[in-house]
Amino acid sequence: MKIIKTINELRQWRKTVDSVAFVPTMGNLHAGHLALVREAHQHAENVVVSVFVNPLQFGQGEDFAAYPRTLQADAEKLQNAGVAVLFAPDDKELYPNTTQAFNVEPSALQNELEGKFRPGHFRGVATVVLKLFNIVEPQIACFGKKDFQQLVVIQQMVAELNVNINIVPVDTGRADDGLALSSRNGYLTETERQQAPQLYAVLCNMKDELQKGRRDFSQLEQQAVEKLNNQGWQTDYVEIRRRSDLAHARPDDNQLIILAAAKLGKPRLIDNVEVDLS
Amino acid sequence: MKIIKTINELRQWRKTVDSVAFVPTMGNLHAGHLALVREAHQHAENVVVSVFVNPLQFGQGEDFAAYPRTLQADAEKLQNAGVAVLFAPDDKELYPNTTQAFNVEPSALQNELEGKFRPGHFRGVATVVLKLFNIVEPQIACFGKKDFQQLVVIQQMVAELNVNINIVPVDTGRADDGLALSSRNGYLTETERQQAPQLYAVLCNMKDELQKGRRDFSQLEQQAVEKLNNQGWQTDYVEIRRRSDLAHARPDDNQLIILAAAKLGKPRLIDNVEVDLS
Repeated sequence: MKIIKTINELRQWRKTVDSVAFVPTMGNLHAGHLALVREAHQHAENVVVSVFVNPLQFGQGEDFAAYPRTLQADAEKLQNAGVAVLFAPDDKELYPNTTQAFNVEPSALQNELEGKFRPGHFRGVATVVLKLFNIVEPQIACFGKKDFQQLVVIQQMVAELNVNINIVPVDTGRADDGLALSSRNGYLTETERQQAPQLYAVLCNMKDELQKGRRDFSQLEQQAVEKLNNQGWQTDYVEIRRRSDLAHARPDDNQLIILAAAKLGKPRLIDNVEVDLS
Repeated sequence: MKIIKTINELRQWRKTVDSVAFVPTMGNLHAGHLALVREAHQHAENVVVSVFVNPLQFGQGEDFAAYPRTLQADAEKLQNAGVAVLFAPDDKELYPNTTQAFNVEPSALQNELEGKFRPGHFRGVATVVLKLFNIVEPQIACFGKKDFQQLVVIQQMVAELNVNINIVPVDTGRADDGLALSSRNGYLTETERQQAPQLYAVLCNMKDELQKGRRDFSQLEQQAVEKLNNQGWQTDYVEIRRRSDLAHARPDDNQLIILAAAKLGKPRLIDNVEVDLS
């Protein structure tokens, strides 16, 4: 596996190969990322993984400085996973002028759900992903469903800007107790870690209720928020949405998704559950 | 020459060739465009020219509806110029959702010079050019210096978003009397057409003054505006800028450009002159 730190070197390597699948990450890799890499291998001869903690997608007061950076351990995992290139640019390589003067401005979805609590987050995500796409020039790119809104924003960006890359969604990796794998789980205390699967459990419970026929979305959402808050969470949102575009769900929609974000102590966790109704 | 109207067909064709140079236009082709095509031929085996009157870059009250559409004549000229593909999508092909939900938001330069008089213009330009780049996937693209601010915005976009395309600037084509070639010259009455070279003449005069050593930029600009207005123009701006990034010129800058926009009757013309000081 090559470890490449500059755009120029990446482009030189890129000229030597045809078939590339890309997995953009912020590093601190866990089994969920490795599932993305396995999926990527299904689609192309060469897998490129980027590790870049993108300042542009962190808001003020968020955990940019504290975000875990574990490049050596990441490199070992990727080497073992058969990755061709680990692309690990520093901030100056991607943002030579410190500020990014040209940005991808996403649709209004950027201001809902996660975007309501993280202003500018999806602009930062869309911009860095487009930059990385333009550098790596893959035929396909894999994104995890754990960050489902991010996946939809990227799918929309690719469609709206005619980016010639196939976006492949990959299921969320989970611990045995159901907790969605996330780098931010590392912030949890031992007690919080015990409690953390409650988030997924609440979403699964909502799914059951929907499948039993309930369509009182607002009430279901409100009950879930209350349940979490009663268990000690500070819930940002629990929302039932249409899965294709994350529009507000209507009673006759069949393909839904329940998305949630909540804080357990300091760490803020997100999760989601897909629901198919017949 | 192939005339291609859909993105899918263009992409199918694109797979069959390696080396592509691209000239995006709004059609109504004149000798200036054909100089872009000749330059493009210097850089690649296949030249693709797009003809698309982009609604996104026209403001309210501008000439989108009236803009001359002359596809058949354009096709003949391009055929004679040895173009491989004329890409002529309709609005629905590039904007299937009517509104464009994801946009490229350019740097603050988008609000100066032309941008001050055409709000949203450069967002529309940058967005459609990125879309066309993603569809055509050329190695190089030619842009005329007549729209110098557009050229700089595109150069900055390519740098900031890491677009892997080489931008080649091409000198402005001019009539024998100096008037910069432009589709909008077709709006001029015969009398206005006689008078139109005054714009270029005023800029050339400023260039002489600068080369003689004058550095009182503001006064030079103001005198030029007065001269034009006295000749019956309504001048939007005449500005001396640093050529590389169109920042306001300072007395020790050597590579300058003088940019101007003014109305002669209804038609609004733009032009510019590069100035090298030693």
